[in-house]
Amino acid sequence: MHTGKTAVAEYLRGLQQRITSTLEGVDGGARFRADAWQRPGGGGGESRVLRDGRLLEQGGVGYSHVMGQGLPPSATLERPELAGAGFEAMGVSLVLHPWNPYVPTTHLNVRFFIAEKDGQPAAWWFGGGFDLTPYYPFAEDVRHWHRVARDACAPFGADVYPRYKDWCDRYFHLKHRGETRGVGGLFFDDLSAWGFERSFEFLRAVGDAFLAGYLPIVERRRDTPYGERERQFQLYRRCRYAEFNLVYDRGTTFGLQSGGRAESILMSLPPLVRFEYDWHPEPGSPEARLYSDYLRPRDWLGEAGA
Amino acid sequence: MHTGKTAVAEYLRGLQQRITSTLEGVDGGARFRADAWQRPGGGGGESRVLRDGRLLEQGGVGYSHVMGQGLPPSATLERPELAGAGFEAMGVSLVLHPWNPYVPTTHLNVRFFIAEKDGQPAAWWFGGGFDLTPYYPFAEDVRHWHRVARDACAPFGADVYPRYKDWCDRYFHLKHRGETRGVGGLFFDDLSAWGFERSFEFLRAVGDAFLAGYLPIVERRRDTPYGERERQFQLYRRCRYAEFNLVYDRGTTFGLQSGGRAESILMSLPPLVRFEYDWHPEPGSPEARLYSDYLRPRDWLGEAGA
Repeated sequence: MHTGKTAVAEYLRGLQQRITSTLEGVDGGARFRADAWQRPGGGGGESRVLRDGRLLEQGGVGYSHVMGQGLPPSATLERPELAGAGFEAMGVSLVLHPWNPYVPTTHLNVRFFIAEKDGQPAAWWFGGGFDLTPYYPFAEDVRHWHRVARDACAPFGADVYPRYKDWCDRYFHLKHRGETRGVGGLFFDDLSAWGFERSFEFLRAVGDAFLAGYLPIVERRRDTPYGERERQFQLYRRCRYAEFNLVYDRGTTFGLQSGGRAESILMSLPPLVRFEYDWHPEPGSPEARLYSDYLRPRDWLGEAGA
Repeated sequence: MHTGKTAVAEYLRGLQQRITSTLEGVDGGARFRADAWQRPGGGGGESRVLRDGRLLEQGGVGYSHVMGQGLPPSATLERPELAGAGFEAMGVSLVLHPWNPYVPTTHLNVRFFIAEKDGQPAAWWFGGGFDLTPYYPFAEDVRHWHRVARDACAPFGADVYPRYKDWCDRYFHLKHRGETRGVGGLFFDDLSAWGFERSFEFLRAVGDAFLAGYLPIVERRRDTPYGERERQFQLYRRCRYAEFNLVYDRGTTFGLQSGGRAESILMSLPPLVRFEYDWHPEPGSPEARLYSDYLRPRDWLGEAGA
């Protein structure tokens, strides 16, 4: 396991570096500011944040590698008996909030956990995924996103994409709104059944696919003209992102429960958010189509998209 | 208990009415919109929201009276054995978000719970309180606020104000920030030890004191000139309100857990919020003084304030 752990850490650091340098090039207006931090309970990380760019209103790409006693219950869905174990966790987590409401918000996370009890290795597992949150969606963009997700999963079995796509729809679900957070993508957790090498290979497939999923959508939509109406709708819809991350998200909960660095955990939150009581879109409007056609689980690659 | 329950419901409806009509007069620019709603699981309520007033950017004053099976664990701190019981809950809850950053945000809640097991009345209790969240605070305002709180508690014993003031400081605490939400006030829960009549009298004392605490501060500060700097700081500090309500607040958690009406529960959230990575005030600035002098528990009535 030690060799494996080092290789995962190296992959994750490299992924953070590749993504941030690519995004700086794509943004063309601002650079990431990097903050290295130490965690009092053990370990640390590096948060990179880009603000007020040409493309991105805010983007945060964090690497963390922390360890300690007392694995929080939020860390594992399937192994409740490990709550309280000694643990080591490493991951890359990213959320991008573009200015243009025609460019979706997106999120990627890839992570590796090791739990120990009584000084013995008890378990290890991988988790992660990526998902897309459009404001004014285009079906062709969503199909492209899901094709990239499917292709990343394909070498690991034809059942992998549908399973992790469904899990993503179930996970990024705002129960109190009866809405998905966006149009989904992939979500997986507690992955160890394939053995270390193959599971790690899958993690890399997901991490490496992310930019290929997101950047073509950015290029297609970043110059779409928009006005105050689209901006206000974007600010309003961002309230769902804040609600999801603060109420439901296990990464956020895990971070806050495990004494993580609050600024790094909360850099996923949108830079500006509108909450409005009982707002509803005009029937038949583009805003209404987001709700009716996109914020529910759909089979994006069923027919035309395949 | 049935007579008591009706009297509490009448008091709460009357309190909502008194507060909203007074606030409309004080605001002078907008009226509350009232929405009656039914809860599928049983009961309902009426939400009143004022937006874009002269004083208030948003104010929400909600009345709810709901009942059902399966009391959520968030409903009672001291009676975990009642989780899952049949329950009836009624309350008034308000949050006011003014435009002017020199006028504090404020919150009031008064509530009454009844739990039943096996068809038998198992327990009843009162809870509630009020607290104040300034952006650019004035010590005299905070002392006035706490004097009103202390005077409301005084007829119930000299130990009541210090006890519920401390509870308020502990409850409205953002653990991940190491900050209180504001300058506190009163918080109490699971109150039944005084018997029904006296406990209900205390609830009324708290509910009736609220406007006497808040309105003099409004009148002193509402015409204070401010600019973009103060507005931006207000928008930034509102992120703490959103974080507290979505991560920690038991009223929000109870509402969402018990299948409450999401729009009514979330109308406490600020209308516009800025999240900013790792922002810190300039040392020595008015913004820094909020953190150093106000966002930690203090004895406001110790010497000069008494």
